[in-house]
Amino acid sequence: MPELALVNGKIVPLDQARVPIEDRGYQFGDAIYDVIDSYAGKLFCLDLHLDRMERSMKALSFPPIPREKIRGYIVELFEKAGIAKAGIYVQISRGVAPRNHGFPRDAQPQIIMTIRSSSGLPLELTEHGVKMITVPDLRWGRCDIKTVQLLPNVLAKQQALNAGAFDAIFIAEDGVVREATSSNLFIAKNGVLFTHPLTQNILPGISRRMVLAMCEESGIEIVESFFDVGRMLDADEVFVTGTITDILGVVEIDGKPIGEGTVGPICRRLNRSLVERAENSPCP
Amino acid sequence: MPELALVNGKIVPLDQARVPIEDRGYQFGDAIYDVIDSYAGKLFCLDLHLDRMERSMKALSFPPIPREKIRGYIVELFEKAGIAKAGIYVQISRGVAPRNHGFPRDAQPQIIMTIRSSSGLPLELTEHGVKMITVPDLRWGRCDIKTVQLLPNVLAKQQALNAGAFDAIFIAEDGVVREATSSNLFIAKNGVLFTHPLTQNILPGISRRMVLAMCEESGIEIVESFFDVGRMLDADEVFVTGTITDILGVVEIDGKPIGEGTVGPICRRLNRSLVERAENSPCP
Repeated sequence: MPELALVNGKIVPLDQARVPIEDRGYQFGDAIYDVIDSYAGKLFCLDLHLDRMERSMKALSFPPIPREKIRGYIVELFEKAGIAKAGIYVQISRGVAPRNHGFPRDAQPQIIMTIRSSSGLPLELTEHGVKMITVPDLRWGRCDIKTVQLLPNVLAKQQALNAGAFDAIFIAEDGVVREATSSNLFIAKNGVLFTHPLTQNILPGISRRMVLAMCEESGIEIVESFFDVGRMLDADEVFVTGTITDILGVVEIDGKPIGEGTVGPICRRLNRSLVERAENSPCP
Repeated sequence: MPELALVNGKIVPLDQARVPIEDRGYQFGDAIYDVIDSYAGKLFCLDLHLDRMERSMKALSFPPIPREKIRGYIVELFEKAGIAKAGIYVQISRGVAPRNHGFPRDAQPQIIMTIRSSSGLPLELTEHGVKMITVPDLRWGRCDIKTVQLLPNVLAKQQALNAGAFDAIFIAEDGVVREATSSNLFIAKNGVLFTHPLTQNILPGISRRMVLAMCEESGIEIVESFFDVGRMLDADEVFVTGTITDILGVVEIDGKPIGEGTVGPICRRLNRSLVERAENSPCP
């Protein structure tokens, strides 16, 4: 089955899918997105992703779109593609209109989707962990909305790749550790986990939420609080969470090893739970 | 003549111009843009705009594009459209590739343009000035690069429109006045002009540069320095400058009148000079 796309309900081969050049997603980044993975032929936590899309669109004052319409498109595309382990990318823009900053009066939101096989990360990375670098957080002030304002993430990711690292961690001007370019970040110290609280400066990740739920279930203490680079480097474990990365150990940051320089036991345990959950159980 | 677009060199009716959904401009805002106006059948300061596009692309590490290729496209589109007073929008993205944050290896930058009649602002606005509001500057940290990371500008502009104002002025966290959503800002006090210095937080406007040049020629003292909201509200005059707005008086901010609440003499004089220059003389 070739890679497919959906454009406002119409399914076409991905390489033929196009949008008008005056789509506001293209000229203003005036669009939200989300990424949904499937495990063993089932879409994982679709409702949580639909919730987040609704929240993102509301934050940008998009005209409301019936939730069932978006769900229907996703399910139709997923079924048509017939890929058991798929990654579905959904992007919704404010619409198509002659270029003016203010909201267009009569534009209809544009819904596009793509579906591909999602091989996930190479096992070697999950097994041995990854290196990261820190970079100043130059992103805009509403990273809690999942929009395509992603150029600073692109530049930071590339800076990491150029440095031989896997990804970059955004550090606020006051030294607070925020998150990586497409994942939330956790540290562990003496058996307790810490992660940045939900503010306007980080994404409310669905995998982040699952880690919180799994910790509660299994009695791992977890604290949502700010911490700086020094505390991160001094942690026993650092890991990041995201739809694509699952739970990924970070074993070196800015050239300094974290803990023993290997993927730690809490990271391993949580990742096993997450994958099991994704394959067997409903969303937390 | 209908409105036209150019897509990688091919000229088509604007409403038929399309880009692939995996253009990085669409999914990451990984694109630069510029807007060029014509006056009396001549493109104004084309070379300054080409300079800025080159600078923007270099800042994002785009593969280099020959300057004469971009110039050729612009001139061809302008001649084909035959619009004496035209606005040409140029956007160049990093290219089309499967969605991954890092730079794609073999993608070719995509060049799109649109051309339309540019009526400029209604004379009434130039004559009587406009109202503005102030908003926190939530934009990313590289507003000196002219990219399509424009969602915060969109939201601020709409907030202004909702408040019955023309536009919004971005204020930094420390109270410094930066610029409006698509124009640079100047204040006048006791015959001296002040404007925000060129940093990573404002756009190096071409009209801004012209104001500096015109002031030097005509002996108006102008200082590039930071000022806060209090000094702006206490100014004799406030005006903004941009390719589309030219030089536009601001007569009220957050409901408070500026000076006499009318367009001031320095603003009027500079705007006359700018329009004369645009119609008759080469770029400063």
